Amino acid sequence: MANPPAHLIPSRAAKRANYEPETINSILDEALYCTISYSADNKPYAIPTAFVRYGNRIYVHGSVGSHLMRELEKGIPVCITVALMDELVVAKSAFHHSVNYRSVVIFAQAEKIESVADKTEAFKWLTEKIVPGSWDYLRPITDREVLKTTALAFKIDEASAKLRTGMPVDDDNDLELPIWSGLIPLQTKRLTPIPDKLSEGLPLPTHLAAI
Amino acid sequence: MANPPAHLIPSRAAKRANYEPETINSILDEALYCTISYSADNKPYAIPTAFVRYGNRIYVHGSVGSHLMRELEKGIPVCITVALMDELVVAKSAFHHSVNYRSVVIFAQAEKIESVADKTEAFKWLTEKIVPGSWDYLRPITDREVLKTTALAFKIDEASAKLRTGMPVDDDNDLELPIWSGLIPLQTKRLTPIPDKLSEGLPLPTHLAAI
Repeated sequence: MANPPAHLIPSRAAKRANYEPETINSILDEALYCTISYSADNKPYAIPTAFVRYGNRIYVHGSVGSHLMRELEKGIPVCITVALMDELVVAKSAFHHSVNYRSVVIFAQAEKIESVADKTEAFKWLTEKIVPGSWDYLRPITDREVLKTTALAFKIDEASAKLRTGMPVDDDNDLELPIWSGLIPLQTKRLTPIPDKLSEGLPLPTHLAAI
Repeated sequence: MANPPAHLIPSRAAKRANYEPETINSILDEALYCTISYSADNKPYAIPTAFVRYGNRIYVHGSVGSHLMRELEKGIPVCITVALMDELVVAKSAFHHSVNYRSVVIFAQAEKIESVADKTEAFKWLTEKIVPGSWDYLRPITDREVLKTTALAFKIDEASAKLRTGMPVDDDNDLELPIWSGLIPLQTKRLTPIPDKLSEGLPLPTHLAAI
């Protein structure tokens, strides 16, 4: 997007804004969930939900009976956000404390996916994002399961990323103070899988052992 | 809340909803950021931001020049969400895959905090949440810094938590399949602090060494 619309340009810290698809996609691919916001009677509603990016779209799913799915499938305007917290930024003053983060904001409307084949493909991408390598190992999905689930796509078109990186930026007057400043890295890890009772005798499949 | 309003009652998986203040507060206290959504011209806007809960309110801050702060301080309706991902729920079929999560949704309007003393107190809570034990160690905040920053409070009144816990729930027909099912725990850790150049000779303060 060469000329992002005004509401995509942050009023502060504009240097942190980024409109590169590579940056936006890498943040979306790392995030486990997004928050979808929509308006009804000019009041905001927001729900965290799982999603996957594939190509130039993100995909979400939910029960055909879910209130959220039935609202979104009308094609109303939504705002989708994700945020990743990378490091706490510890300055010499409270005022200059910050967080190194990567976030994405997308404005879009849902496109409902209708065909069983296309929906199945979207569910495969969603499953493979959460547990890579698992789709072919699982009991195959049935058409009945696909029919019970709504799949929605959102174009990543009107989108922007915002990032902060690097060390704290302290006041010149504070630089010589004997106060520790720097970064505290944050890391989200997947720990050793815990089998349920039915799986206690089963070998851990390769795609889970590699976590 | 004995009788939550209809829009706080999830249309699916109602058993996962929870209105206990202890549950709601513990989720809010563990979350590093929230997502604040609001409507303008019946279109949704959402921004991830740092926050702290104290008593029956949550507090956010931002530059007095920020577009978000100037919108929110009008007292328009907002929807604030937080979500924590605890475990990936790996079932024998893709359809029954899930996530063990804890989320909170709050509907509220901002109350602007005006006095320097009250704002300073809110900034102390915010700083102590991100880096516990740090407030008294830092260069003291100045009135000028307080005046440059907007502080907003939101009552935790119209709020609900949603949780999923426990093992996957597979179809009865799938229980005997030799497919591994169980949980993959997720853990967010704070790693060893990284000093900036100005702090390389300084001892790491006790409140950071304990992380």
